[in-house]
Amino acid sequence: MAHQTAAILVIGNEVLSGRTREANAFYAAGKLFEAGCKLSEVAVIPDERDAIISTLNRLRNKFDAVITSGGIGPTHDDITMESIAEAFDVELIEHNFIVQAMTEHFGAEGLNEGRRRMTRVPQGSKLIRCEKTIAPGARIGNVYILAGVPYIFESQLDSILHQFGDRPYRRIEIEVKLAESLFAKPLTAIQAQYDDVEIGSYPGRCGPDPCGKICLSGQNEGRLNEAVKAVNAMLKNIIPA
Amino acid sequence: MAHQTAAILVIGNEVLSGRTREANAFYAAGKLFEAGCKLSEVAVIPDERDAIISTLNRLRNKFDAVITSGGIGPTHDDITMESIAEAFDVELIEHNFIVQAMTEHFGAEGLNEGRRRMTRVPQGSKLIRCEKTIAPGARIGNVYILAGVPYIFESQLDSILHQFGDRPYRRIEIEVKLAESLFAKPLTAIQAQYDDVEIGSYPGRCGPDPCGKICLSGQNEGRLNEAVKAVNAMLKNIIPA
Repeated sequence: MAHQTAAILVIGNEVLSGRTREANAFYAAGKLFEAGCKLSEVAVIPDERDAIISTLNRLRNKFDAVITSGGIGPTHDDITMESIAEAFDVELIEHNFIVQAMTEHFGAEGLNEGRRRMTRVPQGSKLIRCEKTIAPGARIGNVYILAGVPYIFESQLDSILHQFGDRPYRRIEIEVKLAESLFAKPLTAIQAQYDDVEIGSYPGRCGPDPCGKICLSGQNEGRLNEAVKAVNAMLKNIIPA
Repeated sequence: MAHQTAAILVIGNEVLSGRTREANAFYAAGKLFEAGCKLSEVAVIPDERDAIISTLNRLRNKFDAVITSGGIGPTHDDITMESIAEAFDVELIEHNFIVQAMTEHFGAEGLNEGRRRMTRVPQGSKLIRCEKTIAPGARIGNVYILAGVPYIFESQLDSILHQFGDRPYRRIEIEVKLAESLFAKPLTAIQAQYDDVEIGSYPGRCGPDPCGKICLSGQNEGRLNEAVKAVNAMLKNIIPA
């Protein structure tokens, strides 16, 4: 059965120091929504063994699946594979298939110590291959270990997405040129009636005037459309302050 | 004493569903780095009471301070204040100062049920005021409760930033037109020599060729400059494959 809930674990000092604006979780969030899998948490943590092990163990016990991003390159700060092996209490092994692929690509001499690091995966992993890179990601249990470089992450994610979600979510947005507080109460009543539709209100401004969005999403298209009708009918009755 | 470590807790379904690309954590990450406070974790969770309480309690016990973003507006999905009151096991109270400020601004009639929600903070909170909004954020213990709307979040964050960090971090980046694997080993040796400097390697491509960055950061400027010299000297000795 496909995973119904998921978490994303971003491993990278460059995000926490404000150097890099995280992009992979945003990409994955949109794809999981379309696939019908609920993204329940995103965690960004440093390239530190203890943080990786404790956060991974917490998330993989709580949700159907965890997708990690980052820390699988050849340098000293790439410690995701060894930390995840430790979290699962298995050995870190050189995978024959990766050794062979790298030897073919770089030649036996080109398989230096850095690249050799990239042949290692937790024992029992299945490889996640994609055409963008020779060094694959890996899956162990319900954990999918992907690269941090965005074009590789995206390609790897696309290749595993069929294992996430059964029934796509759909979203409908309604533009509202009213202060939120004017419709907060009747909107609460509609949310109470449609507990299978998620209703959010996001304020904004067009110059000095309020113009926000009410955003409805759900997996049941009939119920979603009914809720949208209810919101539109409610908004017609609001008198701007 | 200023906070030396911090976590950011983003509360919002709109981020997890891929509707909105998160911006506040990225803004705060840069500011905390400049201020000299280590951002140790970012968590993004849904607008759900149990998730807010358990995640907040985990983070506030682990780090010097927690900054939350989102869920303090007037609608049904804004449950941050009440959930944080519950996490601290205190009452949620209408704050006199906010009631008065809102009454002055909107008139007694304009203080509808939605706006009334925004006068509530956990008992014992101090207000975090900024000129961008009448409804303030709040601080309770080591938790700073800020808005999710970016221009308000940024203004509120700027107003509390003096409480974070003592010694600014500085970052120096070196462009490298070599495959990472060629310098991974000597870079590991330099990192081992400079444990007070954080060294990261971020690969990239310029067309078909590798061009990445080695990124060094730290609070001790002398040591940082020494480490940069060591990396530059090391790179001169690498022969491109």
